[in-house]
Amino acid sequence: MTDPRFFAAVGPLTLGELAERTGAEIASGCDRDLRLDDVAPLETAGPHDVSFLDNRKYIEIFARSRAGAAFVHPEIAARAPSGVALLLSRQPYKAYALAAEAFHPPAALRPGIAASAIIDPSARLGAGCEIAAHVVIGAEATIGRDSRIDANCVIGERVVIGESARIGANVSLSHCLIGDRVRILPGARIGQEGFGFAPDPGGHVRVPQLGRVVIGDDVEIGANTTIDRGAGLDTMIGDGTVIDNLVQIGHNVVIGRCCVIVAQVGISGSTKLDDFVMIGGQGGLAGHLTLGKGARVAAHSGVFRDIAPGETVCGFPALPSREFWRGASLLQRLARKKGG
Amino acid sequence: MTDPRFFAAVGPLTLGELAERTGAEIASGCDRDLRLDDVAPLETAGPHDVSFLDNRKYIEIFARSRAGAAFVHPEIAARAPSGVALLLSRQPYKAYALAAEAFHPPAALRPGIAASAIIDPSARLGAGCEIAAHVVIGAEATIGRDSRIDANCVIGERVVIGESARIGANVSLSHCLIGDRVRILPGARIGQEGFGFAPDPGGHVRVPQLGRVVIGDDVEIGANTTIDRGAGLDTMIGDGTVIDNLVQIGHNVVIGRCCVIVAQVGISGSTKLDDFVMIGGQGGLAGHLTLGKGARVAAHSGVFRDIAPGETVCGFPALPSREFWRGASLLQRLARKKGG
Amino acid sequence: MTDPRFFAAVGPLTLGELAERTGAEIASGCDRDLRLDDVAPLETAGPHDVSFLDNRKYIEIFARSRAGAAFVHPEIAARAPSGVALLLSRQPYKAYALAAEAFHPPAALRPGIAASAIIDPSARLGAGCEIAAHVVIGAEATIGRDSRIDANCVIGERVVIGESARIGANVSLSHCLIGDRVRILPGARIGQEGFGFAPDPGGHVRVPQLGRVVIGDDVEIGANTTIDRGAGLDTMIGDGTVIDNLVQIGHNVVIGRCCVIVAQVGISGSTKLDDFVMIGGQGGLAGHLTLGKGARVAAHSGVFRDIAPGETVCGFPALPSREFWRGASLLQRLARKKGG
Repeated sequence: MTDPRFFAAVGPLTLGELAERTGAEIASGCDRDLRLDDVAPLETAGPHDVSFLDNRKYIEIFARSRAGAAFVHPEIAARAPSGVALLLSRQPYKAYALAAEAFHPPAALRPGIAASAIIDPSARLGAGCEIAAHVVIGAEATIGRDSRIDANCVIGERVVIGESARIGANVSLSHCLIGDRVRILPGARIGQEGFGFAPDPGGHVRVPQLGRVVIGDDVEIGANTTIDRGAGLDTMIGDGTVIDNLVQIGHNVVIGRCCVIVAQVGISGSTKLDDFVMIGGQGGLAGHLTLGKGARVAAHSGVFRDIAPGETVCGFPALPSREFWRGASLLQRLARKKGG
Repeated sequence: MTDPRFFAAVGPLTLGELAERTGAEIASGCDRDLRLDDVAPLETAGPHDVSFLDNRKYIEIFARSRAGAAFVHPEIAARAPSGVALLLSRQPYKAYALAAEAFHPPAALRPGIAASAIIDPSARLGAGCEIAAHVVIGAEATIGRDSRIDANCVIGERVVIGESARIGANVSLSHCLIGDRVRILPGARIGQEGFGFAPDPGGHVRVPQLGRVVIGDDVEIGANTTIDRGAGLDTMIGDGTVIDNLVQIGHNVVIGRCCVIVAQVGISGSTKLDDFVMIGGQGGLAGHLTLGKGARVAAHSGVFRDIAPGETVCGFPALPSREFWRGASLLQRLARKKGG
Repeated sequence: MTDPRFFAAVGPLTLGELAERTGAEIASGCDRDLRLDDVAPLETAGPHDVSFLDNRKYIEIFARSRAGAAFVHPEIAARAPSGVALLLSRQPYKAYALAAEAFHPPAALRPGIAASAIIDPSARLGAGCEIAAHVVIGAEATIGRDSRIDANCVIGERVVIGESARIGANVSLSHCLIGDRVRILPGARIGQEGFGFAPDPGGHVRVPQLGRVVIGDDVEIGANTTIDRGAGLDTMIGDGTVIDNLVQIGHNVVIGRCCVIVAQVGISGSTKLDDFVMIGGQGGLAGHLTLGKGARVAAHSGVFRDIAPGETVCGFPALPSREFWRGASLLQRLARKKGG
């Protein structure tokens, strides 16, 4: 079960209530009045917890689970241990997410401004905001209603943040416009000048960085991630895109809607991602590229060319995945032969 | 045009004034009294903006541009659309940088010390410094005149910072000596102990890190970059070197003058870079290496050996670039054949 | 010698005292009453310094050293220049570490709470803690005795920190339990929600992250490193493990005892490392993998499969090291032939 110090559950909820909230179907023979107290992973779930199976790698663990109930895909239902009430869903992970949210609704804000926060008198704060200790907010900044700014954040002059934002501790924002329901995790840096220098024998000449960062609605930005403002055009992040920790996004980058950018990815200046692009962890994109809708880059890969819509690439230099893996296994076979 | 909330322009400037400030030559037939209000990228420039073309990839966009004027290389001047006043320069990007600076001179400091800053009485601050809210400055630290320390920075005991420094928000400095006109972007960490442990069956034995970080003049250090202090010798960064975001520089590393270190590069302990070295994004250098003057490492490459002056390497393990690309295309051809 | 501004030495110590403190043996003919003032690297050591030779790459420098004394492996003793008093040790680097600690014992704490710190009245602080300026400590947090929390840290509600901890400047902690003698360098982020989203055509559905981060004793965590809390299970770091700067550790990762994780490594969610695993800089591990006891991953490598105990892998995809290097040199030979 979850540690009540950090996550108090508001249950119990019945199997029927969970089915309703998540769109799952109760398997035949299961008791819709079964009361559940919390969600839990398969490994630790007990008879009062609801769990889920999403990754077939964990079927063995599922088979031994002591969970009271579980979300599973109908095709795997037969593998369930007896005694587990099944909630059938074609999206068991999503259903679990909704159940977890039902047991653990987001903590309510504690509206108000900490005495130690330093807020410029010209800044505008919407109703219901929670501004934590030692926050600094610059002149003419605007923060939408019901937003929380955690301790020690620095919000630069004229920055605009939408409604219901969650800005984690020790974040720095400048030269940016941020949409509604955006979540920024601790230590992210958004809006600082991009890395622009004109080469010159007398030393690098700094190019003034005169664009902004424009972030849509429902975006998530990970801890210690850095997003530079544009050089002239803006750096843009589309609605619903999620960005993990320690990601670097260069100036003028444009990212579409609902992209997934995993940890430690680097995207060089002026590269454009269409919607639903996925970049695996530590992937790198050169500058001035275009990635089509739904393109995917495998983890740890380095991309030097445009990627067509829907294409998946891997390796360095990144190739269509099948080609990459064929080359890798060919090389391995050759090496074994020579080495033998 | 630039967003006046963040970047007020001080124009107009005439074509003639821009030519003078940047060393560009006005193309024949252009009106040197043409008044321009601001700089802007080709895509968005209007008749009162001056733009530039530096990357041939964007010639098509140039051909359609509505810019009032543009900096271009003389060899490309013929590709300009009619109606654009041309400022000819063999370094159009540098000329644009100077023009941008002319329209947007750096904001003047607001000298003074925020009431919430905590400054040890033994610290010495030069005239004209701006110390923002919640800054903490330790005993006997020295900060040169006309420097700005942004909100929530922590400057450790006896740290020395030169004149006209710009230290971004939420930066931590300790055990370091920093030159003049150095710019450090938000969240950078400089001077913490390096990663030094003597292996031992009983557990790793920490090796006290007794060196410093010594940073020259005109250095730029990116957001959330980390530079560890030396173990015994110092970690050193030469004059005019520019370092992007999320870079890791290990203990005892010595970097020469005017190097360019792109985002997410990692440089392991005791490696030495001569002047004018360039490391592409996500590049990694093993420890105890020497890179000669003007050496270049391609993005995403991993280097395990010394690099000769002027040499360019690529891949993992990094090879001379031509060899790397030949190997990559050979492998791709073989894989296609086998797979066919 | 070390810069006395940052590192005052408490010597002198005699050769005999150093031998005693480090377990080294004084070479025959050396004066055990020789007085030494400090440690220093071979390059800069003078007649009153003790140095060490650990890496055979530096034998030439050793031969020219002016050090008064040096820790060396008995097998290399013959290479020492005359006039250097030798301290023989089979672990010269460890012996040097102990000597450095003898000359530079850790600075004593200055117990007390800075006036500008904001500490919830329900938080519990052990005796002898030093809480620096602008620290924020949330409700019911617990900090063990003799711990230091540096300036501008944010310690979340109910976080538990053990005894003799050292928490660097600008760190953010939440949802975590931390052992004794743990050192966290500036800017690290621990306990924020992991990157968990259920894919859905209507947009990514955030999965509540209901686990914690549990960190053992004697762990070191580098600057700007990020460790996400578990999704349901906990993210765990075992006793004595050392983690360098800018490392990303995903939710549910379990790391054993005495592992070494070098800078910029990324470990994806739910991967498990047994004890004594070493991951070189910029290495990446996919999710849901298992690395056996003593497994090693070379720098800059990308791992997509389980690694057996004691196995060393390299490359992308990571292969047994010997295979990787054989393939790399084969490809290089083929490419040279074709290109010739």
